[in-house]
Amino acid sequence: MVVIGEKINGTRKAVKEAILNGDRLYIERIALEQANAGADYLDVNAGTNPDRETSDMLWLLDIVQSVTDVPVCIDSSSPQTLKAALEHVKHLPMVNSINADPHRLESFLPVIKEKGCPVIALALDESKSGMPKNAEERLENISKIFIETRKAGIGDDLLYIDPLIMAVSTDNNACMETLSCIRAIRERYPQAHITGGLSNISFGLPKRELVNRTFLTMTMSAGMDSAVCDPANTALIESLKATDMLLGRDRFCRNYTVAAKRGFDKK
Amino acid sequence: MVVIGEKINGTRKAVKEAILNGDRLYIERIALEQANAGADYLDVNAGTNPDRETSDMLWLLDIVQSVTDVPVCIDSSSPQTLKAALEHVKHLPMVNSINADPHRLESFLPVIKEKGCPVIALALDESKSGMPKNAEERLENISKIFIETRKAGIGDDLLYIDPLIMAVSTDNNACMETLSCIRAIRERYPQAHITGGLSNISFGLPKRELVNRTFLTMTMSAGMDSAVCDPANTALIESLKATDMLLGRDRFCRNYTVAAKRGFDKK
Repeated sequence: MVVIGEKINGTRKAVKEAILNGDRLYIERIALEQANAGADYLDVNAGTNPDRETSDMLWLLDIVQSVTDVPVCIDSSSPQTLKAALEHVKHLPMVNSINADPHRLESFLPVIKEKGCPVIALALDESKSGMPKNAEERLENISKIFIETRKAGIGDDLLYIDPLIMAVSTDNNACMETLSCIRAIRERYPQAHITGGLSNISFGLPKRELVNRTFLTMTMSAGMDSAVCDPANTALIESLKATDMLLGRDRFCRNYTVAAKRGFDKK
Repeated sequence: MVVIGEKINGTRKAVKEAILNGDRLYIERIALEQANAGADYLDVNAGTNPDRETSDMLWLLDIVQSVTDVPVCIDSSSPQTLKAALEHVKHLPMVNSINADPHRLESFLPVIKEKGCPVIALALDESKSGMPKNAEERLENISKIFIETRKAGIGDDLLYIDPLIMAVSTDNNACMETLSCIRAIRERYPQAHITGGLSNISFGLPKRELVNRTFLTMTMSAGMDSAVCDPANTALIESLKATDMLLGRDRFCRNYTVAAKRGFDKK
């Protein structure tokens, strides 16, 4: 499982305040916390203010890279911010994100191809209004993305498809739609990765962690091999390790047993 | 989910001692605990001593039925004990268990047919030595059982198929074999139920509860609709309710939300 740490996100209140106040220590702390918990990438999102997104992004990247070698996942919809960030990183980053919108593909694909970055691809078409309604519409959008990435010479294995996880509290079928979408992606694009923002599923419900970790087990069983989540959430990582073992991927149950003995607080 | 409470089992040390010491209070307590936690059936097993199994079974049934109306699951391999128990119960019980052994089928099926009891059917052939090696051998045994139950005029919906859950610590593929067996049963016998002893999966591992509840989510997603387990284990019931909701079976997430507010300690 490729775990993308979600915490350094300028659309979250505490991070937004840290950016506005120049609070380096807070950013260092959440970077280290996620790195120590075993994150494979650290998502870095500088918020959505076009006047300062690029400078804030570079400031965040400097801080993150001063405390850890875990590669970042550059989370921006701005081609300018993306290009500046790519010049600024020490290790090959992931890019978050592309979707089926032709303008986004046109501006992002050349730079992704040039650097050979893994990229998160949302099952969305931003050029159309609204979210896709069901698994079918998601798969249509995904298909459009693969046509363009393949045309650009980008390997399927660089794509991390995000089927767009929605809240089960507003649509009782949200999990089942996601699982059917994951199975279809796994079948059609066996080389591609599948990721997603886990905690969306539990929006509006009590005991969200319970729902998130139960959902993680279900998505992994269906073929998801990455998640955007909090790697420092012990209950979630417990479920991840137990699921991995039950899926027959943990020889002699060694990873699970070692992790259990350590209390699941470190990778 | 049909939850069969596993605790009143004479092969467990504490229960065996309670039987030998005539400790009614202990049996009352574990019966009530499981009934209050929402068990659909209470398994009652009087141990394996042929000289006293029948009288111990009747003693246990008296105690259980004096404190709860939850039906029992008569757990015995002895036709004599089964017949005596069936005369002794107030509510239609479940029977645990038949398997592909022709002698067992011959002695159990007439009485099951007569009473119309649901029955647990193990994917085993006791007349042959050893456990089935893989999903295929399990499905062969199950197929033999259905031939006989159908011949006897017993509806498929009365069968609770147990695919025989084994420890993942001794066979890394144990969970995957179980899941593939569950999917095949669900497809071939859509009217039948699927159950099993959940905790077998985690034998020999640390944090067994974590493994059990993760496994429960996976088996339910594959089509299992019953489990032999401890209904008073809050962590397990939490996962059961969350999984049920995520599988789209909990309209407006109402059962989950109500259970979460109660702390998952009551059905």
